Amino acid sequence: MNAPTIVAMDLEGVLVPEIWIAFAEKTGIPELRLTTRDVADYDELMRHRLAILKQHDLRLKDIQEVISQMAPLPGAKEYMEWLAPKLPHVILSDTFYQFATPLMRQLNYPTLICNTLEVNAQGQITGYKLRQSNGKRHAALAFKQLNLKVIAMGDSFNDTAMLKEADLGILFRPSDKVRQQFPQFPVVTEYAQVQQLIEAFIA
Amino acid sequence: MNAPTIVAMDLEGVLVPEIWIAFAEKTGIPELRLTTRDVADYDELMRHRLAILKQHDLRLKDIQEVISQMAPLPGAKEYMEWLAPKLPHVILSDTFYQFATPLMRQLNYPTLICNTLEVNAQGQITGYKLRQSNGKRHAALAFKQLNLKVIAMGDSFNDTAMLKEADLGILFRPSDKVRQQFPQFPVVTEYAQVQQLIEAFIA
Repeated sequence: MNAPTIVAMDLEGVLVPEIWIAFAEKTGIPELRLTTRDVADYDELMRHRLAILKQHDLRLKDIQEVISQMAPLPGAKEYMEWLAPKLPHVILSDTFYQFATPLMRQLNYPTLICNTLEVNAQGQITGYKLRQSNGKRHAALAFKQLNLKVIAMGDSFNDTAMLKEADLGILFRPSDKVRQQFPQFPVVTEYAQVQQLIEAFIA
Repeated sequence: MNAPTIVAMDLEGVLVPEIWIAFAEKTGIPELRLTTRDVADYDELMRHRLAILKQHDLRLKDIQEVISQMAPLPGAKEYMEWLAPKLPHVILSDTFYQFATPLMRQLNYPTLICNTLEVNAQGQITGYKLRQSNGKRHAALAFKQLNLKVIAMGDSFNDTAMLKEADLGILFRPSDKVRQQFPQFPVVTEYAQVQQLIEAFIA
């Protein structure tokens, strides 16, 4: 395990599939396919999603059923097994603890910092609680305040503020839109490339 | 996995035995038995340790050999397995990455934030790099800045500043000196008690 460097990673699109896309496919509701890769304003995106859930009377357990059948992206588990003894790492995600736990188990329970859904007694998702705005950026800054070097990796608009604060920012399979708007970050498509960038950084 | 609460824990004396005490027993050098439980000034303690190592020509590999035979405290592995799916957690320690990796493996690689030893080409420990002074306190404050609630647990003087900043501070098997000086924190001796305190906090 090397000197004080921490790796901060996005979850969906980077280590696991996009949960809402999987759910959109399962339910056949195409409006649920939009993600932070498409819509920069997270609150707009979430209000849109919750309205659709309400309209179709879909509850937390319906989404959790889909998630329980999901697996990490191919190679993600092996990448995390490689990373674990090498560097401390955390997952910074805009997802919700109620969604993420079964996926965390499959990744050997890395430290996850994310958000909370508001769910009523009937299991309907009534809202969500964002831990803080620009949470990923604040986390990167907090780690730097602890005199840790920060490697950050993400795929979406909501990751780029964190990548900007990091000592090394990596775009993992970004959309063309994100890639074009942030040409300063190296773009990778495979975990082997991530491993090379990390090895080079800590060398 | 529950709402935004993070558990910050000391390592030695809380999850694994005191590394320096184990090393003192192995080498038969009683002066190496002192720990942060006995000496409040960490730099004084480390300079004392490094001087003794030099005097006896003991090198990093000698300490690593002892560490490779160590195991977590009885029950620590099961406690961490209980905690992993429940709450995000990190280990904040004054130990060194060069010491801790084999022990982290046995605890399923929790996120570890600690310090770095300076080692020369002959494998002699020539110094150490403290990531920052009051590192544990700063980490607790940083997590609070991220709008996380903080449960902190430790056994020593160097943990008490972190416990003070936490929403819940727990003393795990502290020395009498620490216990008397910090009567405001609940004292536990078993992981089952820690689990009860955590369950009550997040309820």
